[in-house]
Amino acid sequence: MIRDLILKNRSYRRFYQEVDIKRDTLRELVDLARLSGSARNAQPLKYILSCEPQRNSLIFPHLAWAGYINGWSGPCEGEKPSAYIIIIGDTEIRQSFSCDHGIAAQSIMLGATEKGLGGCIIASIEKEGLRKALKIPPQYEILLVLALGKPKETVVIEKVGSNGDIKYWRDSKGVHHVPKRSLDDIIIG
Amino acid sequence: MIRDLILKNRSYRRFYQEVDIKRDTLRELVDLARLSGSARNAQPLKYILSCEPQRNSLIFPHLAWAGYINGWSGPCEGEKPSAYIIIIGDTEIRQSFSCDHGIAAQSIMLGATEKGLGGCIIASIEKEGLRKALKIPPQYEILLVLALGKPKETVVIEKVGSNGDIKYWRDSKGVHHVPKRSLDDIIIG
Repeated sequence: MIRDLILKNRSYRRFYQEVDIKRDTLRELVDLARLSGSARNAQPLKYILSCEPQRNSLIFPHLAWAGYINGWSGPCEGEKPSAYIIIIGDTEIRQSFSCDHGIAAQSIMLGATEKGLGGCIIASIEKEGLRKALKIPPQYEILLVLALGKPKETVVIEKVGSNGDIKYWRDSKGVHHVPKRSLDDIIIG
Repeated sequence: MIRDLILKNRSYRRFYQEVDIKRDTLRELVDLARLSGSARNAQPLKYILSCEPQRNSLIFPHLAWAGYINGWSGPCEGEKPSAYIIIIGDTEIRQSFSCDHGIAAQSIMLGATEKGLGGCIIASIEKEGLRKALKIPPQYEILLVLALGKPKETVVIEKVGSNGDIKYWRDSKGVHHVPKRSLDDIIIG
């Protein structure tokens, strides 16, 4: 059931870093994005993969993690992602990418969830640093970084309270709580 | 398997219009989007539903269909969508919507596919006309229209040929062919 998969597909930011993800697994995930919809079928998205510690360490410093959690700048060594899929837009194909990267990212994350993996769609990227680190040519616009690994935290959905605050928080046991708006709040007609 | 669902989730543009889709079904689909990721968990997306012929007829004229197919301006009466989910962005929550609407649209379309439905993510919208027709307040930015129904056409995936042409086409039997780039063409590192 797709609903179960979507419920299981939470944003995870701490991982069993020692659990490897093979490049072939990343390729299978990108294949799900490849087979997903694209505006005007232009398919301007390209992908850069990373699943080796040395290459992962080039990517990690350019990502911002969980902005609402004060005093936490991201996963510590041992809890970092095991792999990344970087989604870039090929400006020689299109100059804007509509929401293609959202469609692609969701396909990939659902595929990862089905494989017992998890992760986080990261748009808060220090792009020029990442570009230099991986020598990404100027032809490509950096859109999203998908951080992947075997999740090492519990994430639970909460109702948004009467104050309307949607900030996620982490409790004293390290459980990550994510307030979601109700269906009646988001269907307006 | 998510791969099977993604393969089945093609863009359909002709439907058995007489097959009703209930409002509760649309609500279940929006719930999948509700439970999906959102940048900074802001959840700025709102939804407008339509599943009645009279209301559907207010939406249809403002949509552009299958730009690559010359001489076809969209489905004829009897083959039009049975329902729509309009994704709008609430500018009182955020001014830009990142790729949240792509994530939401993919969750909805996969849910629809699982229910034996199908449809098309439409970004080519005559927005001001649609805004007037449905009296959508200026606070909301119109992002996507998801057209939904029971598909009445066959869509097959093809390889992109050596000329690189990604335009879909319809053959003499009405089968819709969609060229997709190869995995090796889209993974660049």
